[in-house]
Amino acid sequence: MQRVRIVLSHTSHPGNIGAAARAMKTMGFSRLVLVNPKAFPDPQATAMAAGADDVLAAAEICSSLQEALSGTVLALALTARRRELATEPLWARAGAAEIAQSTATGEVALVFGNETSGLSNDELAQCGRWAMIPANPDCSSLNLAAAVQVMCYELRLAMQDSLPLPPPVAGAGAPATHEEVDGLLTHFEASAVASGFLDPERPGRLMLRLRRLFARSGLEKEEVSILRGLLASFRQPTGKRHAGLKKPNPP
Amino acid sequence: MQRVRIVLSHTSHPGNIGAAARAMKTMGFSRLVLVNPKAFPDPQATAMAAGADDVLAAAEICSSLQEALSGTVLALALTARRRELATEPLWARAGAAEIAQSTATGEVALVFGNETSGLSNDELAQCGRWAMIPANPDCSSLNLAAAVQVMCYELRLAMQDSLPLPPPVAGAGAPATHEEVDGLLTHFEASAVASGFLDPERPGRLMLRLRRLFARSGLEKEEVSILRGLLASFRQPTGKRHAGLKKPNPP
Repeated sequence: MQRVRIVLSHTSHPGNIGAAARAMKTMGFSRLVLVNPKAFPDPQATAMAAGADDVLAAAEICSSLQEALSGTVLALALTARRRELATEPLWARAGAAEIAQSTATGEVALVFGNETSGLSNDELAQCGRWAMIPANPDCSSLNLAAAVQVMCYELRLAMQDSLPLPPPVAGAGAPATHEEVDGLLTHFEASAVASGFLDPERPGRLMLRLRRLFARSGLEKEEVSILRGLLASFRQPTGKRHAGLKKPNPP
Repeated sequence: MQRVRIVLSHTSHPGNIGAAARAMKTMGFSRLVLVNPKAFPDPQATAMAAGADDVLAAAEICSSLQEALSGTVLALALTARRRELATEPLWARAGAAEIAQSTATGEVALVFGNETSGLSNDELAQCGRWAMIPANPDCSSLNLAAAVQVMCYELRLAMQDSLPLPPPVAGAGAPATHEEVDGLLTHFEASAVASGFLDPERPGRLMLRLRRLFARSGLEKEEVSILRGLLASFRQPTGKRHAGLKKPNPP
């Protein structure tokens, strides 16, 4: 359970942070990460945390979701409605099961957005999976801490029930971390600008689309290395091509 | 769902009544019954109800649990700890399943006690079943509204045999066909050979790795098009780069 971080992005009401900390603790989770909270620490957070002051005291504060997800191998975004640019959603229970399985390979995150506006498209694109809590279509927005409670409850059950995974097969490599995927995207961007495909003045949605694609793919470390090697080879001056180059990152 | 009443007994904090009303409504339940609430109606209840004012407005107020359970065929009491005088507990999910089944025969109730002291022994004895929400043994007491949220969530799932996924939104693109993915891989291969990254005499496992990666990604048509556009841009002669190229497949 130490491998699970609960990430609250751009939370407006400090009382919700406290209530979320309590919800986490009742389900046995303790790693709270706050991205640009509007007010924290705050007496309202402490009041709502009840016995979970330790969770609040140990909370990490980050300035971006990217920083908050550093080192994770899978992030599950919670959203109250279907989102553009998003792949098929999972229901909460299935999402919790995927997250529970991924704790076998590394750190994971459950990601919750702002109370009113939810997660931005850019934040959503950084999460490999996204899930919805089944709800009344006429009133689908749970209180933030209530959503944290439901997801932590499902995750607790999923982690208790999860059968040991089959042993890894040869060829299934170690998952890339969030930073490694990020490095790949930066490399893609630089290459696309260099080739003229991407106009930095008018970037459009290219990088968002690629981020979303690779977040969904569950990249392995070695795949990142292969793709970066390929990108590096594309940027060799034309004259040097076809000339028995050293491969930057041989497959 | 009209056959389900949520009974809150001797609630101390009116804010919890409002938050419980919201939790109910998000899961599609609307019948709230209050046994001797300390303060109700109350502005704090209204503030926490968010969009569930209708649930609060229709709440029934009773002077005893007996009155609140009038007409029910099964009541499930929620408690945070094992109780004297109680039969074997159910876990929350199994309790929700029993309650869901009983809606076929009549009215049912989920019963929640006071925030600090829970249900009295006399109240507990009036409920046919009792259940616990699986929790951290060192911190097992959920906030009242959080417990209502979890139980209403479980009951919603138990009452729905299979959950239809919401319809797709625009923006979640059409999936690429096998041939389109194949075309992308061929394009990757040609580009890698042209750049010197892949030696066609000794191809190794590069293409197998890329095929596996993209098979797993569930590519969309538009993503294939973006990636092929990028690959094409990398193969432009160097002299023509940075020169306001037409993008072969603009994102």
